[in-house]
Amino acid sequence: MATVVLRNPDKFNAMSRAMWRALREVFGQVQARTDLRCVLVRGEGGHFCAGGDIAEYPGFRFDPASLRAFHEEDVWGGLSAMLACDVPILAVIEGHCMGAGVEIASCCDIRVAADSARFGAPIAKLCFPMAPREAELVTRVAGEVTVHELLLEAAVLDATEMKARGFLSRVLAPTALWPHARERADRIAALAPGAARLHKQTFRALNAQVAGANQSGAAINSIVNSAYDYADSAEHREGIAAFLEKRPARF
Amino acid sequence: MATVVLRNPDKFNAMSRAMWRALREVFGQVQARTDLRCVLVRGEGGHFCAGGDIAEYPGFRFDPASLRAFHEEDVWGGLSAMLACDVPILAVIEGHCMGAGVEIASCCDIRVAADSARFGAPIAKLCFPMAPREAELVTRVAGEVTVHELLLEAAVLDATEMKARGFLSRVLAPTALWPHARERADRIAALAPGAARLHKQTFRALNAQVAGANQSGAAINSIVNSAYDYADSAEHREGIAAFLEKRPARF
Amino acid sequence: MATVVLRNPDKFNAMSRAMWRALREVFGQVQARTDLRCVLVRGEGGHFCAGGDIAEYPGFRFDPASLRAFHEEDVWGGLSAMLACDVPILAVIEGHCMGAGVEIASCCDIRVAADSARFGAPIAKLCFPMAPREAELVTRVAGEVTVHELLLEAAVLDATEMKARGFLSRVLAPTALWPHARERADRIAALAPGAARLHKQTFRALNAQVAGANQSGAAINSIVNSAYDYADSAEHREGIAAFLEKRPARF
Repeated sequence: MATVVLRNPDKFNAMSRAMWRALREVFGQVQARTDLRCVLVRGEGGHFCAGGDIAEYPGFRFDPASLRAFHEEDVWGGLSAMLACDVPILAVIEGHCMGAGVEIASCCDIRVAADSARFGAPIAKLCFPMAPREAELVTRVAGEVTVHELLLEAAVLDATEMKARGFLSRVLAPTALWPHARERADRIAALAPGAARLHKQTFRALNAQVAGANQSGAAINSIVNSAYDYADSAEHREGIAAFLEKRPARF
Repeated sequence: MATVVLRNPDKFNAMSRAMWRALREVFGQVQARTDLRCVLVRGEGGHFCAGGDIAEYPGFRFDPASLRAFHEEDVWGGLSAMLACDVPILAVIEGHCMGAGVEIASCCDIRVAADSARFGAPIAKLCFPMAPREAELVTRVAGEVTVHELLLEAAVLDATEMKARGFLSRVLAPTALWPHARERADRIAALAPGAARLHKQTFRALNAQVAGANQSGAAINSIVNSAYDYADSAEHREGIAAFLEKRPARF
Repeated sequence: MATVVLRNPDKFNAMSRAMWRALREVFGQVQARTDLRCVLVRGEGGHFCAGGDIAEYPGFRFDPASLRAFHEEDVWGGLSAMLACDVPILAVIEGHCMGAGVEIASCCDIRVAADSARFGAPIAKLCFPMAPREAELVTRVAGEVTVHELLLEAAVLDATEMKARGFLSRVLAPTALWPHARERADRIAALAPGAARLHKQTFRALNAQVAGANQSGAAINSIVNSAYDYADSAEHREGIAAFLEKRPARF
């Protein structure tokens, strides 16, 4: 069993570019190890992940090519390495689970959370949309109704509501979360590892089929083509600037 | 912000052909206005929409060509104008939400309802099926299990159950519904309008991909090809006649 | 109205090869009868179906060709006959509903259960995976999150949880189950039979479209191609042997 820990101290584990690249590398290593039977993913210090590391954004978000590289290579590189992993992944969620946190949790097979956990993707406050592949992932796992609330309303939902929406398998008191997660991981690890790998390969193939990866990598690629044209827009620049200057955005 | 009001007095806002055409026109206007940030949809007089205006049905339902024109041009014209709209749409639902009402609500991004609301699509009582594009829409939003109950059983579900099924985001006491809806709409309107439009375009592209619109407009078109062959059937004629004569159908 | 009864005494109605073939035949007969308006499916003796008849497994599971024939011809033959049926099907579930039981229930249009019912697919304990077409079916109906728990954790969920997950339409006390099911079946049978058949044909066409059956029978067939290569693996042999010898599997 392995545990992957998201860690960015003082930023509630917000994902920096370096962390996205590390996520890809770590799950590449996980996939290469034939002895692993279960992977847990958690955040350090009482939070899962608060989103992206916004302090880095002015460095690359305002040019379409570098914005595309960030989403398609760094972010999707990390998430797709999780999705390509044949070992069952269990997300153990406390505190903030926002934006990138919801995306990372959506790459896990099973999600359990403390009742203190809060879920959202309030990037409309930063004046930019979720990238298409990321939106497809979260929509598939969290459902369309929930994604509409998270993205169009910047809604923040608590763990009980996310259980009712089907995103979480179980909600527990914070003190009960880890004993429960370890028990679940032990149960997974006690089962036949070959069957687990075949199951994960089948799930992945079915998702690829529904998402049209076979016929229409075409389709999502055509969405992605124009997805980063907003990079240099006034609204986007203002959203990031306002956040960093700790003032409301004007648009 | 704009509010679209469904209105057909004394018929609980049942949709006439003229109303379907007006729905298309109104959402065409909404889409053309770049200043709008949120649209509310509601019915007048304590009900959302009771279905289709059955009094009109004998005039066009019994011929395959005119039946097809009704569903593919009038109904789908209105619904597809809503689906093509880049502005977030919030459905505010009280009282009857049946048939066409469920379809219109399914075109909205977020649905909130009074606990007095009732949902159904009891068209099997009229001896005809939901048209394919409409069935696909409602299945995607309400889920297969719920659609089976609505269509195969003519079940009527209350708002609490529709919240549990994932169709509604929130259920409130009737007096709390409008304050809540306005607060939600204000929250949507306060967010970046460009991000909202990009989000809606992405959701639409993802749905089109899953529904196979790229490869297989083919597929749904082939369903539609024979979908209206039942127009002149005895069962269909009897269902409409019985309803209008206020007697049970015989079949 | 017809009732199909799953029966394998002393084995909680576990499905033998003969029962899968009978299931295909029975639903072929149902489909040929134009007078039927509703079919109920239940198990005998207080249980729905405990899974496959494992005593038969050593006779065919360890050779890829005979394993493929079992899943693609016998199992899928029975399940696809249910899916091809134009008559509404209501599952009435008590007690064990495991593996094959969940698959059969997933082919029904509406599912109601006693609060004593228990749902699972703990085949990872037998060291083999659910076959791809069966996994696609159950994932579509039960949802990805639930399937992950059933298959990767060998979780067993109770009826209340399966209602919350959207798999069941209603959960009742055991004594109330049959009166409720008969009332539901009567309601279905009282509706227009032609509309019901058109609805079922539309649902089937939409599922085929989403599952890509038109363009990509291709896609699922390519998954199926290698799906039975594990037949002769040590893990698979050990899982079946351990079960039949009533000892824990070693792997």
